[in-house]
Order: sequence, then structure tokens, then C-alpha cells
Amino acid sequence: MFITFEGPDGSGKTTQVAQVAAALRARGYNVLLTREPGGTSIGDQIRHILHDMDNKTLHPRAELLLFSASRAQIVEEVIKPHLALGGLVICDRFFDSTYAYQGYGHGLDRDVLRLITEFATGGLRPDLTLLLDIAPEESLQRRLSAVASGEEWTRLDDMAMAFHRRVREGYHVLAAAEPARWLTINAAQPVERVQADIVAALEPRLPVPQKLA
Amino acid sequence: MFITFEGPDGSGKTTQVAQVAAALRARGYNVLLTREPGGTSIGDQIRHILHDMDNKTLHPRAELLLFSASRAQIVEEVIKPHLALGGLVICDRFFDSTYAYQGYGHGLDRDVLRLITEFATGGLRPDLTLLLDIAPEESLQRRLSAVASGEEWTRLDDMAMAFHRRVREGYHVLAAAEPARWLTINAAQPVERVQADIVAALEPRLPVPQKLA
Repeated sequence: MFITFEGPDGSGKTTQVAQVAAALRARGYNVLLTREPGGTSIGDQIRHILHDMDNKTLHPRAELLLFSASRAQIVEEVIKPHLALGGLVICDRFFDSTYAYQGYGHGLDRDVLRLITEFATGGLRPDLTLLLDIAPEESLQRRLSAVASGEEWTRLDDMAMAFHRRVREGYHVLAAAEPARWLTINAAQPVERVQADIVAALEPRLPVPQKLA
Repeated sequence: MFITFEGPDGSGKTTQVAQVAAALRARGYNVLLTREPGGTSIGDQIRHILHDMDNKTLHPRAELLLFSASRAQIVEEVIKPHLALGGLVICDRFFDSTYAYQGYGHGLDRDVLRLITEFATGGLRPDLTLLLDIAPEESLQRRLSAVASGEEWTRLDDMAMAFHRRVREGYHVLAAAEPARWLTINAAQPVERVQADIVAALEPRLPVPQKLA
């Protein structure tokens, strides 16, 4: 089973996926937790280019192709092999980020995005996608606090608020179009409440019906 | 006018394009000489990933997407602006390298390559493409000599001889399909002879009819 998490930076995604992965491991699932962009040595080199504030001139089409390159690598090197062994893969971002950020955010042609995405993934799709939904004003506020505590402010954090609003709207359109795959979680709640909602949403959909918490 | 040079590493491409650029500048052309992958700060970061021997696990689909990302960036940041000013651009490799290496070399689907290439270039095509044609055994021999004198042996040098043979065959198919755009030069000749052939081939095709040499 292949589960992806989506939502803006500052939605608490990284914390939540780590907790979910731990909870599922405790229940005996063979969980591989990974993230995009990155997740492989080559992907991490690509991630660095994408996040580096010195790369502000990165063109949206080049950006899309870099995210897709990292995706092609993680699919072949990490995700497919673990799924082939019967494992459960949790990925922090996957191709829906491309549709939300490069499609709705930057306005790139969505048919071309779909084609490049299918090429990059070799057709692999998540079984389940959790959207950590939060207003851009609030996720930005959280990012500012995180940066004040030492985290890096990235090139993507630096995009205009209007961009982040289009990204959120894009996520809503994507979730509405495939209700069987998407589960929307209110990420503006306290961390524990978000985690409880995720667990409750995941529980009935896991391959072997085991209690999670 | 947009001129590209194609051929394997070890065909003398880099030496030849530098000489052609100098000759054209001496005749008053506003020449911008650049190369792929690279040609921009972001492109050079991508080039490093593509050439690094530590990245031997790079999947062909990820490789194609990285070359395409570098291409999208150089087209927007460097090539289009110079052409818009009425300048002449010479590029050491462009999208035909993708068709030859990822298409014929790795066997990736050529219709998908074409689509991703059109996305990366925004539809920009060279007016003229010079193929420095040489047998893979010979270009490899030259690369080995260059490496002995201190040049870096790259991940692409390291591909099997059968790969390099398919690449050359691919170049021949591409050149035959568009004879008005391609000029094939015998790169197995001495450097001066190759340069003379290039100049003779270019001369009648330059925008303003000036003597080159």
C-alpha cells in the first residue's frame, strides 16, 4: 500500500508522517517513510537545487522537470522495490504537489504536467492521499516560527501569498475530483488532534484490519 | 540565428565550437557561446549531478528529466534573450543529444521525449546543427588521452561501447530525417581540417553573407 501526504510547508506534515509511520510500525507494518523531493542520494542533490535561495531565477518549467527527476529516481530506487516486497510506503509529498504547485500555483499546462508525471512515475499512483489542509496565512506563520528556531527559509517559502492561495485551491480541486483516494484533514488543529484525525481516517482503509491506537 | 553542435564526447566538439565562435566574433557577429547541460548557474549544478561518478544509480528517466531541466533554464535565461537581441547563439549540445542518448542510447520512448523536449524548450529549435561524426572507438580513445592529461572521467563516458554505438546510429537517423538542418562533419580528421570543414559548411548559411576565413 502506497500512502502520500500533501499540504503546504508549515502544515505539520513532517511531524505527522513521522508519528503515523511510528504508529504503523508498532502495529507490525513494514513501513518505509520517505519524502519528495529527495528520498535518495540523487534526489537530495536535486532537493538542494530546488530549495536554495540563490536559485531564485529557476524557471517554472525547469522547476517542474527537477521535481519530476527526483520523483523518477525515488520511484525506481525506493518506492517500487519496497511495494514489491509487500511493504507499506508513506511519502511526504508526491505528484499531487506538482499539480498543486506547478499547475495551480504557477499556471503550467495541466495536460503536459500529467504526461510528464506519468513518465516520471512509470504510472505509479498512491492508493491513499491525506491532505493536511490549512490557510496559507497560518502555515506561513508556522514557517516563520520554525525559521526563528533555526530551520531554513526556502525558495518556495519565499513565493507570494497569492501563489500559496492558488496552491491550496488546487489541492481542494484535486481532492474533490478523486474522493475515493483523498482524505482531507483539518491541519489548523493542535498536533495531537490532527494525529488522531489521521489515524481515524486511515484505520478503516489499511490492508489488514488492525487497531491503530 | 541558433546553431548547435552535436556528437560524442571526444569528438573535439568543445575545441571546435570555441574556434568557430572566435572566428565569427572576428567577423563582427554578436556570438554567445554556451553549452548543455549547464550554461547557467542552475544548469551547472544539474550538470554536476549528471556527470558525478557517484551517481551511477541515476535512472534513465531521471537523467532525461535532469537534462531537460537544464535545457528549460538555459533557453529562458540565456538563449532566448540573446536571440531576441538579434545575436547569434552557438550551443555545445541541445535537444538532439536527448534523442540520441536517451532515445537511441537508452531506448526511451521517442514520442514522450519529443513532448518533454517541446515543454523544456518552449518550442525553440536550432536553425542549423553540425554533427561531429566519429567512430565510438576513436572518440573513446581521445577521451582516455584527455583523462590521462587530467580531465574528469564522467558517468556518461563510463557507459558501455554498445550504448555509444547506438548513440552514433541515432545521430545518423536524426541527420537523415532533417537534411536541411543538419551538416555532418568528419571529426576523425586532424583538428585544423575539421575546423576548415565546419567553416566551409557554415559560410553559405550565415545570416549576413560575409567571408569567414
